[in-house]
Amino acid sequence: MAQNARLHSLGILVLCVLSYPAMTTAREPVLNLMPLPANMQSGTGSLAVDSAFSIAFTGYSEPRLERAGERFLKQLAHQTGLPLALKPSKTGKGTLVIQTDHAGKEIQEVGEDESYILDVSTASARIRASTPLGAMHGLQTFLQLVDVSSSGFAAPVVTIQDQPRFPWRGLMIDSARHFIPLDVIRRNIDGMEAVKMNVFHWHLSENQGFRVESKKYPKLHELGSDALYYTQDEIRDLVAYARDRGIRVVPEFDMPGHSTAWFVGHPELASGKGPYAIERKWGIFDPAMDPTNERIYKFLDDLIGEMARVFPDHYFHIGGDEVNGKEWDANPKIQAFMKAHGIKNNEALQAYFSGRVQKLVTKHGKTVIGWDEVLVEGVPKDIVIQSWRGQASLAKAAKQGYRGILSNGYYLDLGWPAARHYAVDPMSGDAANLSPQEKQRILGGESCMWAEYVNPENVDSRIWPRNAAIAERFWSPQEVRDPASMYTRLDFISARLEWLGLTHRSVSRHMLQRLAGSASPAEFAALRTLADVLEPVKDYTREQTAPAEPTSATPMNRIVDAVPLESDAGRRFGELVDQFVAASCHDPAAEARLRVQLTAWRDNDAMLQPLAQRSFLVQEVAGRSQDLAALGSAGLAALDAIAKAQPAADSWKAQQLASIDAAKKPKAQLLLIPAPAVQKLVETAAASGACSTAKP
Amino acid sequence: MAQNARLHSLGILVLCVLSYPAMTTAREPVLNLMPLPANMQSGTGSLAVDSAFSIAFTGYSEPRLERAGERFLKQLAHQTGLPLALKPSKTGKGTLVIQTDHAGKEIQEVGEDESYILDVSTASARIRASTPLGAMHGLQTFLQLVDVSSSGFAAPVVTIQDQPRFPWRGLMIDSARHFIPLDVIRRNIDGMEAVKMNVFHWHLSENQGFRVESKKYPKLHELGSDALYYTQDEIRDLVAYARDRGIRVVPEFDMPGHSTAWFVGHPELASGKGPYAIERKWGIFDPAMDPTNERIYKFLDDLIGEMARVFPDHYFHIGGDEVNGKEWDANPKIQAFMKAHGIKNNEALQAYFSGRVQKLVTKHGKTVIGWDEVLVEGVPKDIVIQSWRGQASLAKAAKQGYRGILSNGYYLDLGWPAARHYAVDPMSGDAANLSPQEKQRILGGESCMWAEYVNPENVDSRIWPRNAAIAERFWSPQEVRDPASMYTRLDFISARLEWLGLTHRSVSRHMLQRLAGSASPAEFAALRTLADVLEPVKDYTREQTAPAEPTSATPMNRIVDAVPLESDAGRRFGELVDQFVAASCHDPAAEARLRVQLTAWRDNDAMLQPLAQRSFLVQEVAGRSQDLAALGSAGLAALDAIAKAQPAADSWKAQQLASIDAAKKPKAQLLLIPAPAVQKLVETAAASGACSTAKP
Repeated sequence: MAQNARLHSLGILVLCVLSYPAMTTAREPVLNLMPLPANMQSGTGSLAVDSAFSIAFTGYSEPRLERAGERFLKQLAHQTGLPLALKPSKTGKGTLVIQTDHAGKEIQEVGEDESYILDVSTASARIRASTPLGAMHGLQTFLQLVDVSSSGFAAPVVTIQDQPRFPWRGLMIDSARHFIPLDVIRRNIDGMEAVKMNVFHWHLSENQGFRVESKKYPKLHELGSDALYYTQDEIRDLVAYARDRGIRVVPEFDMPGHSTAWFVGHPELASGKGPYAIERKWGIFDPAMDPTNERIYKFLDDLIGEMARVFPDHYFHIGGDEVNGKEWDANPKIQAFMKAHGIKNNEALQAYFSGRVQKLVTKHGKTVIGWDEVLVEGVPKDIVIQSWRGQASLAKAAKQGYRGILSNGYYLDLGWPAARHYAVDPMSGDAANLSPQEKQRILGGESCMWAEYVNPENVDSRIWPRNAAIAERFWSPQEVRDPASMYTRLDFISARLEWLGLTHRSVSRHMLQRLAGSASPAEFAALRTLADVLEPVKDYTREQTAPAEPTSATPMNRIVDAVPLESDAGRRFGELVDQFVAASCHDPAAEARLRVQLTAWRDNDAMLQPLAQRSFLVQEVAGRSQDLAALGSAGLAALDAIAKAQPAADSWKAQQLASIDAAKKPKAQLLLIPAPAVQKLVETAAASGACSTAKP
Repeated sequence: MAQNARLHSLGILVLCVLSYPAMTTAREPVLNLMPLPANMQSGTGSLAVDSAFSIAFTGYSEPRLERAGERFLKQLAHQTGLPLALKPSKTGKGTLVIQTDHAGKEIQEVGEDESYILDVSTASARIRASTPLGAMHGLQTFLQLVDVSSSGFAAPVVTIQDQPRFPWRGLMIDSARHFIPLDVIRRNIDGMEAVKMNVFHWHLSENQGFRVESKKYPKLHELGSDALYYTQDEIRDLVAYARDRGIRVVPEFDMPGHSTAWFVGHPELASGKGPYAIERKWGIFDPAMDPTNERIYKFLDDLIGEMARVFPDHYFHIGGDEVNGKEWDANPKIQAFMKAHGIKNNEALQAYFSGRVQKLVTKHGKTVIGWDEVLVEGVPKDIVIQSWRGQASLAKAAKQGYRGILSNGYYLDLGWPAARHYAVDPMSGDAANLSPQEKQRILGGESCMWAEYVNPENVDSRIWPRNAAIAERFWSPQEVRDPASMYTRLDFISARLEWLGLTHRSVSRHMLQRLAGSASPAEFAALRTLADVLEPVKDYTREQTAPAEPTSATPMNRIVDAVPLESDAGRRFGELVDQFVAASCHDPAAEARLRVQLTAWRDNDAMLQPLAQRSFLVQEVAGRSQDLAALGSAGLAALDAIAKAQPAADSWKAQQLASIDAAKKPKAQLLLIPAPAVQKLVETAAASGACSTAKP
């Protein structure tokens, strides 16, 4: 592989390394790193990180590296509480020396060398990299290595040779459906840097908002954004901020659909009669640009030209998804045009539009990226397909010569557990059968944070920590896929991410306080006990189960908005039940822990109900609290039955399963996560000879 | 009282109000307000606060009020999660109408009218105030009234007529010993606004740092601050920020002692030979300005003139505390001067210096405020004494015609519980016996955050929530003094203060994560269980018990830096024991809760020890963890003995008390708060007939 050539160019030997297939069988990870490096070899001992710790740059340098060094030192001081000197040494000597060979590209490119080697000995540490990108990745790895030890803060002795599996490792944030302020964007970019993602895909226009200042067509943001938009100066600052962290910024202007907000100021671009207003609801809507109107191409030529100067990246995302075609069908002029030009259907009409837009993007020096729909016959081979449809769509494109990235399976808004995202591989399914040359066309992937149900307050908690697991999928070798190892490391990294200013952990408590008002400490503890095992409903059921049609003005102050998308307590309870049952129920320690947990759940409802009487927002989960109490009782009854070493009666089982079934049903748009694990206990109790706590 | 005259000038009747002596007998407060208003009358029902909520200003207006209205709406939206319109209405109509009579002073003055009346009905609310200061206080009261209810967010129907007891209600922050960045200062000013404090006293120069840019004498900050100082532009912004919140900013330049940092750039001002370096240790040091050097008065004339323009407040704090006189004694020139001018001793020499400086301050249009030591014979009557010595000192000054404020009893760094600060009253002790005219000279008080052991990370947690209790002491009627009511409301207000961005609650968990490193969730929970009942040693014992001499470079990453200064869990356990014993131990619910808590403590150590083996920062409290386990065992044994309804044996009692005595000793600079309450259980068990859980 190309990376090996790079390694040799660094003048070092590739070390004998731990192989991952062996690693994944162990439950304990080698080190708390995420993403795991391509290769690493652990040694003995550790490098002390104390108040005298220093860093120095050698070889090629640039201001970006100096700034990265200062950020590293500030972060290390924060992480350890040590009063470090916050400037890199100018002498070339330091505890950690970072040697960089040469500059990277002026505008960061896809596939630039991001490799690095990190050597930590008991006396010093060294990072070697071809480019600043690799050097910065090495600094992040070192930060993750530093931990508290019995004798002080320290980094373990290790040799790491690392490079990414995929060159395109992105996070998309939809700032259009709900506006996300720049400070929130910035801290998410800090998080991306920590887990070595390198593309921030910024979804900037939608039916619900046009979020960029246009000096050429100011009515776009003035009438299409409710005054919630980014100025061009702010965007330039953000792009520089991202570049400082080795991250490209790819803007998306979604067209010809998803564009109602454009038409508020520019109804002449639309296929319908208008007038148009900023959309307040969620879904797929009729408004679409009129591909038969020549004026639109002049307009887009201007706008794309303007935006191509604001966003320096070589790629320009034109969206292209989900046009329902209703405005086209209803417009006689469009129908006449299609007839006159032999355009058979709406798909062909969109292909015509995409082709025209693609030429404009090319004219302004950029390469098109778009959702699956932009891949139509005759589109030039240099475009990149972002697939929301899946590996089959991606593989088909690759076979045709198109490059692509995968987003299907990485939609953060669907509320999947980290392990489910983690199991999705861009090279699996149809993509696994591609030729090596075709596989090269699969550039990587992007997680997507669609923003119907996120706002500046809770968006961090919808992205993190799960996004770190996806980042590992894009960076680490394909063989790195043990979910147990992932979760152990994710828990550690999640805490670390909060040191960057991300609020994904702390915000839940904060939002629960809003719900709880003047609750007593005991009542608040009861609310947290319940909230800890709730998750919002998954996939697209949030719309379907909403108490009233949700809009962009719907308050997001309910429990469903406050709880994390993945319940750690629920997952751990499930693991404990599995452990208990796997040991044929001969695990007194696990049984004791299960009893403590189940008892707490059974008794929690009595503590919570008085608060539910006083708070309409807690009242909504009064039923969930009763369900949790029922699960606690059922689980305890199952443990009692198991202890008797005789199968429980069928009538008992039916009774328990009925209450578990009730608990499994979503209520208040919330799932009660421990239900299946409690069911497993009940079924174990009822199964003849399955378990007995009496010693065999 | 003058306030009544103001009320009548507002054209309203004084309502029949609840009297506080009656209120303080009830455990339940009327409303979750802090500080409690001077007068309030609760009604029936509530005013809904929903998405349609709006505010409007009538009468006198100014940009400051408009900004206050916008901040209020933003805060209300944040607090409720409701999508409110974030601009005050221009129509004069709104759910809440704020009527202001006239402007306040250009530069906020001591004793300006801060009164307001707040009427909430089921249909609307109204604030009436003479000045913007009163209007802004009314807005803060309204924010505290809004809470979640069974039918939505709401404010209860109430009529409040409110004004402060004292006109000077301050918080001093020492930014000199540890530099505190402006964002941290700003959020503390937000906290002050929320609890109606109106003076930010900024301690800006010390042995350890000179923190203000001087354009006249730039060596002061360039050589005396380690580059950690505020520019004059930043200060002007901060002063405007405070003024927007009804808060005066009083700068303190401490002299002639506490001034080593001045001498690094200007050794010619000092009484010793030098050279001088920024002091890195804590304590009282020898360097002092040379009162006999005429050049110093020229220098101070320039500097005070410069700073008088940067800080618009009418008062200028010259410090004056803790000169040990050693440099004066050792300097023959100074001794000769004293002889020649008949200056008998160092106190008289300081008086001479203070008198000269006082004239310079007056020349630049300001009034002197200083610590007790500046009150020497012949000093003009317009100066203000800030008393670190106490009410006797304050009363003596008042009798002599001097105005004063109390800080003795309000030193936040001493780690006292909120109730202890709360019990200190500026009008108690000698001050209680002053004549009405003399009492008028006691302007109020200031809490003081001295910064030897605080840094930007944990300073919020050293100020809040206790400072809110002190704020109530300065604002509310003297009769408001029930600690139980205070704690109930403080818990609520403390949570609210975090909505402003203060981190006093969240930082503890964050800092514990640093100590815990890659701890498992169970280990981390064990660390929190222990940390929840620990408090740093009190008063000035931290110096005495330090493992090594502390300096400004000592890391603040230990448990003693992470835990709050007051343990809520410890306090609540003590209350529960009191409740149990007071009921002659016939309180099964309390007993059950005690058993749960004591069992958790007994068993916690086993969970924590593996982490203590891995983290040197947790290792430090391994002994405290064992002590907590012993307390748990002793408490459980006491409950068992009580259940037997026979006095426990003397030998048993002696054995339990020995382990409790060990737990009472400070270790790792930490106190184990539940020890006295467990001792009470043991003594109850051992006392003949004191208690029996058998029904009488």
